[in-house]
Amino acid sequence: MNIVDTLFGRPLATEEEKAERIGPLKGIPIFGLDALSSAAYGPEAALTLLIPLGMAGAAYVWPITIGIVILLGIVYFSYRQTISAYPLGGGSYTVASENLGESAGLLAAAALMIDYVLTAAVGISAGVGALVSAVPSLESRTLWLCLAILFVITVVNLRGVQETGGVFLLPTYIFIFCLLGLIAIGLVKTFAAGGHPVPVVMPPKLTAVTGTVGAWLLLRTFSSGCTAMTGVEAVSNGVMAFREQTDKTAKLTLTIIIGILMVMLLGIAFLVPAYGIAATDPGVPGYQSVLSMLLAAVTGRGAFYWVSIVSILIVLSLSANTAFADFPRLARAIAQNGYLPHAFVIRGRRLVYAQGIYALAALTGLLLIIFGGITDRLIPLYAVGAFLAFTLSQAGMVVHWKRHGGPGARHSMVLNGLGALATGITTAVVLVAKFVDGAWITVLLIPALIWMMRSVQSHYARVAQEIRVATPVHTGNLSEPVVLVPIDRWSLVAEQALRFAWTLSKEIHVLHVACGEKTDELQRQWSNVVEQPAQAAGLPPPRLVVLTSPYRFIVKPIVDYAIQQQTAQPERTITMLIPELVESHWYHYLLHNNRPEAIRALLLFNGNQRITVASIPYHLKA
Amino acid sequence: MNIVDTLFGRPLATEEEKAERIGPLKGIPIFGLDALSSAAYGPEAALTLLIPLGMAGAAYVWPITIGIVILLGIVYFSYRQTISAYPLGGGSYTVASENLGESAGLLAAAALMIDYVLTAAVGISAGVGALVSAVPSLESRTLWLCLAILFVITVVNLRGVQETGGVFLLPTYIFIFCLLGLIAIGLVKTFAAGGHPVPVVMPPKLTAVTGTVGAWLLLRTFSSGCTAMTGVEAVSNGVMAFREQTDKTAKLTLTIIIGILMVMLLGIAFLVPAYGIAATDPGVPGYQSVLSMLLAAVTGRGAFYWVSIVSILIVLSLSANTAFADFPRLARAIAQNGYLPHAFVIRGRRLVYAQGIYALAALTGLLLIIFGGITDRLIPLYAVGAFLAFTLSQAGMVVHWKRHGGPGARHSMVLNGLGALATGITTAVVLVAKFVDGAWITVLLIPALIWMMRSVQSHYARVAQEIRVATPVHTGNLSEPVVLVPIDRWSLVAEQALRFAWTLSKEIHVLHVACGEKTDELQRQWSNVVEQPAQAAGLPPPRLVVLTSPYRFIVKPIVDYAIQQQTAQPERTITMLIPELVESHWYHYLLHNNRPEAIRALLLFNGNQRITVASIPYHLKA
Repeated sequence: MNIVDTLFGRPLATEEEKAERIGPLKGIPIFGLDALSSAAYGPEAALTLLIPLGMAGAAYVWPITIGIVILLGIVYFSYRQTISAYPLGGGSYTVASENLGESAGLLAAAALMIDYVLTAAVGISAGVGALVSAVPSLESRTLWLCLAILFVITVVNLRGVQETGGVFLLPTYIFIFCLLGLIAIGLVKTFAAGGHPVPVVMPPKLTAVTGTVGAWLLLRTFSSGCTAMTGVEAVSNGVMAFREQTDKTAKLTLTIIIGILMVMLLGIAFLVPAYGIAATDPGVPGYQSVLSMLLAAVTGRGAFYWVSIVSILIVLSLSANTAFADFPRLARAIAQNGYLPHAFVIRGRRLVYAQGIYALAALTGLLLIIFGGITDRLIPLYAVGAFLAFTLSQAGMVVHWKRHGGPGARHSMVLNGLGALATGITTAVVLVAKFVDGAWITVLLIPALIWMMRSVQSHYARVAQEIRVATPVHTGNLSEPVVLVPIDRWSLVAEQALRFAWTLSKEIHVLHVACGEKTDELQRQWSNVVEQPAQAAGLPPPRLVVLTSPYRFIVKPIVDYAIQQQTAQPERTITMLIPELVESHWYHYLLHNNRPEAIRALLLFNGNQRITVASIPYHLKA
Repeated sequence: MNIVDTLFGRPLATEEEKAERIGPLKGIPIFGLDALSSAAYGPEAALTLLIPLGMAGAAYVWPITIGIVILLGIVYFSYRQTISAYPLGGGSYTVASENLGESAGLLAAAALMIDYVLTAAVGISAGVGALVSAVPSLESRTLWLCLAILFVITVVNLRGVQETGGVFLLPTYIFIFCLLGLIAIGLVKTFAAGGHPVPVVMPPKLTAVTGTVGAWLLLRTFSSGCTAMTGVEAVSNGVMAFREQTDKTAKLTLTIIIGILMVMLLGIAFLVPAYGIAATDPGVPGYQSVLSMLLAAVTGRGAFYWVSIVSILIVLSLSANTAFADFPRLARAIAQNGYLPHAFVIRGRRLVYAQGIYALAALTGLLLIIFGGITDRLIPLYAVGAFLAFTLSQAGMVVHWKRHGGPGARHSMVLNGLGALATGITTAVVLVAKFVDGAWITVLLIPALIWMMRSVQSHYARVAQEIRVATPVHTGNLSEPVVLVPIDRWSLVAEQALRFAWTLSKEIHVLHVACGEKTDELQRQWSNVVEQPAQAAGLPPPRLVVLTSPYRFIVKPIVDYAIQQQTAQPERTITMLIPELVESHWYHYLLHNNRPEAIRALLLFNGNQRITVASIPYHLKA
C-alpha cells in the first residue's frame, strides 16, 4: 500500500472531516479558477469576433463588458441567496429538483454534467494551447501535455480538498496579483497621460475594416464573453467544503471571486481601447493574445511580463479544477437520489468523492484523446448547459421563496426572478448564437443523459422492491445441499476439497471429465484412496461420476451436470466446490488454466438460486 | 454461440480428426508458402546486394544460386530421413532433445520460436509492402492492412487445417503456375534467340559500378538468399497433419515443394542475366522488383504480367501461414514436456492447437504495431534461428542413427552429417554476416527464452511434487465450518444466504459494517426477523456482529474478521458466504459494487487453506 499512500496520501478517518474544510484562501484556487481564468480568455473571445470592425470594434468592448458584469452581478446576488437558503449545498440540481420537481432537476443535472466535462477538457487544452503558442517546438506533444496536466489535476484532487487548495494556491495568487497590478499600472499611466498613454511596446497595426456592426455580431460577442460562470455554481454547490460557518465562508469566498473577476474584466475593457489594441487572428502568423499585447504595451517585455504570462498559462490549465471540485459533488447529489450509481456517494480514503473524480477524469481524457488535445471545436458546446442550469436554479429559488415566505422573502423573490430572467435570456442568446456551431449536440445529449439517469433510478427502485422483505426469516424446508466436487486426479488439492465436502453433506458427487490415461488411473485407485477409508470412518462414500466430452471441453460437462442435478432434485440446494490453486506469484497464474473462474461464472449465470459455488483455496508454496 | 460458429465453424469431435488430415494438394499451401514465396524475394535480396557491382554482378547470380540449391538439396534429403525416423512429427525440438539432450532441444525450440514470429511478421509486411509500392495511395494504411491480413490468417487457421488448405489453395497454385510459366516462356525465347533474347519491355539501365567483388559481399549475398528454409522444418514437424501413410504423404509434399522451389530459383537465376536485368535500389524512385522487371521483359505488360504480380503479392502476404501451421505444433511439443504452459497442448474446438495460434497472432501483431507494419529492420534477425535449429536437428539425427543402427544407418548418418555440416557453416555465415545488423538480438533472446522455459518447467515440477499424494484420504478431524455471512440490511438476499448457512453449520456469524441509520434499523429488527423465528424452529440463532470502520472501508473489516476467526479457531474451517446479485443484463453490473469479488480475492490470497469462500447467487428479475 506504500505507493498508494505516497501518491494519494494516508487514508483519512471520517472524524478528520472538519480538518479538511477550507476557508476563502484555499476556496479561491479550488472553486474560483474557472471564473478567474475567464479574465484571460473572455475579453479575447469577444475581441476576436470584433476583428472585422477594425478600430471601430474597440468602441463596443466597453458596453459589452458592462453587460457581462451586470449579468455576473445578478447571478452573484441570486446565488448568495441560494447559499443562505441551502446551507448544506445548493447546486442547480438540488434547488431545481426540490422546488420545480424531478424533471427540472434532472434537466439541470444533465446540463451541468455536460458542462463540467467540457470545462475540464477546454480548460486543459486552452492552457496547453497557450503554452504551445509560446513554445512552438512542443506542438507535437500537445496531447501528452494535456493528459499529463489531467493526471496531475486528478491526483491532486484525489489527495483531498486541503491538498488541492495548497497546491494551486501560489499560481492562483500570482495570477491575481499580476492582473490587478497590470490594471493598476495601466490606469495610472492612462490618467497621467490624460487618457492617451504611449504604449511601451507598440501593439500590431489594426487590420482593415471588412464588416459592419450588427445586433447578431454583438449578441455572439456577448455570449462568447459569458463562457465562464460555472465557478459561481461550483461555490454554491460546494458549501459543505467550507469551514464553519459554512454558508458565511462560502458567501465570502464567492464575493471575493466575483469581485476580483469584475475588476479584471472592467480594467481590461478600459485599457484595451485606451492603448489601441485589437485582437489578432489566431489562425494567422504573428498572432498574439490580447493580454500579451496589453502587458507589453503597459509594462514592456520585462520580468513582470514574463511572470504574468507564465501565471496566465498555469491558471488556464488549472481552470479545469473547478470542474474537478464540483462534478463529484454534483454526481453525489444525483446518486443520493438514485439517479446515478451508488458508488458516487461513497467518500474515498481522502474524504473526496473519488468515483466522481475518476469518472470526470475518464470522460475528460476521452474528449482530449478524441480531439487530439485541440478542443476549440468544443467551445460552442459549452455555456449552454451552465446557463440552462442557472436559469432553472433561479426559477427554483423563486418558487422556494414563494413557498417559505418569511422576512425579506418578497425582496429575495424579486432578485432571484431577475436572475432567472437574465440567465434565461442569456441561455436563449447563447443557444441561438451557437446552435449551428455545435450547441445542437448539447441539445441532443441532454435528453439522452436524462433518459439514462431515469433508467438507473428505475433499476434501483425495481431491485429494492424485489429484494425487500420485512417478514421474519423462513425456517422450513432446510435440507443439506448436494455437493459436487470436480477433480482432475487424486491429489492433495482433491483431498482437501473432499474433506470439506464431508463437513457439508452426505450426498457428494465427485466429477471427473474423461481424458484417457488419467481417468483410468483415477478409477483404478478410487476404491483404495476414497471408498474404503470412507467406509472405515463411517463417512458416506462419494460417487465418482466420469463425464465424457466428445468435443474435449472441460468446463461445459461439469456445468451441464450441475444444471441437470438442479432439475432432477428440485427441493435441494446444489453446491459446487471448486478447488483453486492459490499461487505465490501473480505470473504463475499464466501457467494454470482459468477453469475455476469459468465454472463459477457459468453456474452463477445459467443456474438458478439453488446453485451455489464455493472456492476451496489450496495455497502453493512453489 | 452463433457468431462463434459462423466465424470459426462448428466444433469438431475428437473422432473427426482423421477427416481433418490433408494430402499434398492442401499440404503445399499450408506448409509450403514460406518456402515457395522465397522465390519471389530470395533472388531479389541477393541481387540488391550485388547492385554496386553493376553488370559484373549478374555473373555471380548463377554460382550463388547453385550454392543455395545444393544447400536446399542437402537439407531436403536429411529431413526426408528425419520424417522416416520420426513418423509422429520430428521437428528440430523433438529430434534435438531426444538425441542431444534437453539443453540442445530447448536451444532449437527457442531459436525456432523466434524465427516463426519473425517469419509471420516479415511475411505479412513484405506482402503489404509490395502492395503499397504498387498502389502508393494505400501507404498511410500500411499497419491496418498488415493487421487485417494477420486477422484473416488467424481466423482461417483457427477454422482448422482442412479450411486453411482450401482457402489458400487457389492463390498458391496460380502463383506456381505463373512462375513456372514465366520460366518456361523465358527459356524457350532465350534458346530460340541463341542466348540473347530481346526484352519485350526493356529493363532499366544498370547503375554505375561503385564497388568491387569480395568474399564478404558474396557471403552476405548467399546468406540473404537463404532466408526461407523454415518451410522444410514445418513439413517435418507437421507429419501428423497428413493423411495415412502420414510419413509417405509428408515426404511427397516436401519433395514437391522443394522441387518447385529449386526450379524457380534456378530458372530466375538463369533468366535474369540473360535479359540483362539487375536489381534497382528500393529506396530510390523508379524502383521495380526483379520479378516485375523479368515478367515485363519476358512477357510484356499484359494479362499474364498482372495475374502474376497479384499472385506474388498474395503469396507473399500468406507466407506467414507456414509459421501459423508450425508454431502451434512446436509449442505443443514443448508444452507436452512441461516447458510451456499446458494450455498449448489442448486442441481447440476445430482440433487445432488454438492457444498456439493466439500466442503467435498476439506476438506478430505486437511486432507489426511496434514497427508500424514496416519490418525491414527485422530481416537481419531472421534465419539465424532457423539454421541453428536445422543444425541441431541434423546433428541429432547423426546421433540417432549411431544409436539405432539398422540397414542403411551408416549411409543415413553420412547424409545427416553432411546436412549438419552445411547448415552449421551456414549458421555461422549468417550470424557473422548479420551480427551487427541485428542478429545479436536473436543471440540475446535465445538464452532469455530458454531461461523462461526452464522456469516454467521447474514451476510445474514443484507444483506436481507439492500436491502429489498416493495415500488414502485422511478422514479424521472433520468439523463443521464457522460460517460468516456479510449483509448490509435485512432483505430476501440476506435471508437466502442465512438459510443456506443453517444447512452448513451451527456456528453462524452475520457480519454487518456499521453505517448509521441502516445499522440501527438492522439491530432493531434482528430479534424479530431472525432470533425469535430461529429459536422457535430449533435452529441455532446466528450472532449479529457489527463491525466499525473509521475509514469507511467495507471490504477490509469483513476480511479482517475472517482472518481473525481463522487465528482464533485454529482447528476449524472458516466459510464466508457472499450473497451475489445476478443481474439479467450485463450493464446493470455497472450499477452495483464489486465487493463480493474483492472479498473473495482478498480472502483467497490472505487467508490460509482453512478459509473457503462461497457465492450465493440471487437472481434479479429487474
